[in-house]
Amino acid sequence: MKKLALGVDIGGTSIKLGIFDAETLIFKWEIATIKEKGFEGVLLDISESIKEKLKDLNYTLEDVKGIGMGVPGPVLSDGFVKVCVNLNWKDVYPAKTLSKIMNELPVFISNDANLAALGEAWQGGAKGHENSILITLGTGVGGGVVVNGKLITGSHGLAGEIGHIKVKENMRSSCNCGAFGCLEQLASATGIVNSAKEFLKDTEINSKLRTYDVFSAKDVIDLAKANDELAVKTIEYTSEYLGIAIANLSLIINPSVFVIGGGVSRAGQYLVDIIEKYYIKNSPISEDRAKVVLASLGNDAGIYGGAKLVLS
Amino acid sequence: MKKLALGVDIGGTSIKLGIFDAETLIFKWEIATIKEKGFEGVLLDISESIKEKLKDLNYTLEDVKGIGMGVPGPVLSDGFVKVCVNLNWKDVYPAKTLSKIMNELPVFISNDANLAALGEAWQGGAKGHENSILITLGTGVGGGVVVNGKLITGSHGLAGEIGHIKVKENMRSSCNCGAFGCLEQLASATGIVNSAKEFLKDTEINSKLRTYDVFSAKDVIDLAKANDELAVKTIEYTSEYLGIAIANLSLIINPSVFVIGGGVSRAGQYLVDIIEKYYIKNSPISEDRAKVVLASLGNDAGIYGGAKLVLS
Repeated sequence: MKKLALGVDIGGTSIKLGIFDAETLIFKWEIATIKEKGFEGVLLDISESIKEKLKDLNYTLEDVKGIGMGVPGPVLSDGFVKVCVNLNWKDVYPAKTLSKIMNELPVFISNDANLAALGEAWQGGAKGHENSILITLGTGVGGGVVVNGKLITGSHGLAGEIGHIKVKENMRSSCNCGAFGCLEQLASATGIVNSAKEFLKDTEINSKLRTYDVFSAKDVIDLAKANDELAVKTIEYTSEYLGIAIANLSLIINPSVFVIGGGVSRAGQYLVDIIEKYYIKNSPISEDRAKVVLASLGNDAGIYGGAKLVLS
Repeated sequence: MKKLALGVDIGGTSIKLGIFDAETLIFKWEIATIKEKGFEGVLLDISESIKEKLKDLNYTLEDVKGIGMGVPGPVLSDGFVKVCVNLNWKDVYPAKTLSKIMNELPVFISNDANLAALGEAWQGGAKGHENSILITLGTGVGGGVVVNGKLITGSHGLAGEIGHIKVKENMRSSCNCGAFGCLEQLASATGIVNSAKEFLKDTEINSKLRTYDVFSAKDVIDLAKANDELAVKTIEYTSEYLGIAIANLSLIINPSVFVIGGGVSRAGQYLVDIIEKYYIKNSPISEDRAKVVLASLGNDAGIYGGAKLVLS
């Protein structure tokens, strides 16, 4: 009986893989992304690694219902991927190709950030919620939107690009995308550091940060928790824009939960509480607000999402 | 054979009704909303009017597959309506009640603005598009989101409340909802008049508007089309915020078309072109942009959406 679902999360440096028996992750592992092997070469590596691991666990491909795969780029509804910058892929159909390599095994595909949202919706922070939005605060800001238990991918695979919604007017510097005032410019790890630097430059507020040569978003958060005045101001500033973004997303999608993930979310409940304060401030229209919670699957969210794609 | 679908759009002063034979609207009419009759009284009026009209057209209830109904308030997924301010309804199940009155005929229900979005997606400006967003610019700003041909309603029936997404920082006055900087404050007919008044007060720019005692959004648009400097400035200002809203919605839902409806949209292609200019300016991330088009069903959008609810 075919009962296994495989999740594969392809990143620029490593590929995460997981074998699920119904809802249970029974084994997970990682392999290197050897981009130099080219598009088919990377997929062949995935295929070989899966076959090997199944054998180790006394399974065969016959036991596998399908594979759900995440790639770092927009995916059209027919599985077409125009470009994955980090993988040097252009104009490819990764799911169709992997399926062909693997004896026509069903392969499903989605954008990696969207897939993480599906994983968190299935067994993570949004478990039990039909409508949820994941916001990942890392080097950049990404996310995904789940409605009625399914991912929204959009007409050009660009749905859930939460990092680039405009939340601030009159932003002096531009975002990597070319726009001004993107959420990513404020709420990413880089954004937090940049905001702190501006407050250091533009104000006289006391701060231990003035004694640092370089500092990270984690440093700012740790100091904010210890009541460093400028660090607190920075985190409040960041969280206000996150609160505005969440309030706006509430009015468009109206989910019952927002899940905060990514490296910055290691700040924990401290950060969630401040974000929630500004979400409430910016959404007086209804008291039926969504919950704000922390992501719980960490780097495994993508492989969970992959398995869910197979099982849906 | 049951082949008819009925659309019913309940407003504060009138109720629009339509009979559809498959995709064709074969008859439409209107009755007054006599709120004083109370919740069941209004539904009885609808039931009586439908039966009468079917008889006139030589049909019976046996020919009807179902009714799709729009109400001016949030609708939960189980059909519960907590409040319709304009109808004095509280804690009701309009679809269940109408179905009971009408011999268990299937009745579907949605928020009226969402229903109009579904109507435009089915046979209006977004026809042929799987993913679309309607933005209605009237006394207020409303809308609805259609994904994969179906309405997004959200966990509390609040999805598509596009008028209350925050697009402007440092707005001096507050919106009816209590927030500051809502799209409705800028892009509604009222918003356009208010913006023009502020420019009249805060600038020395020449304008025929300075000779008007009172003026409407239509006056501002007409003067802008005739190159009145302050009127042009007002419409550019309004459209910039609409462009930002559309750019943000694109990144969340990624539809292939935006439909602009409501009274203000009578400004026509002139307005669409300016909105599109600011949409492009604010979405450098991808050239795969949605089209911006005018709504085409006018006040019938709701009954079209109602019929589509039945036929989906």
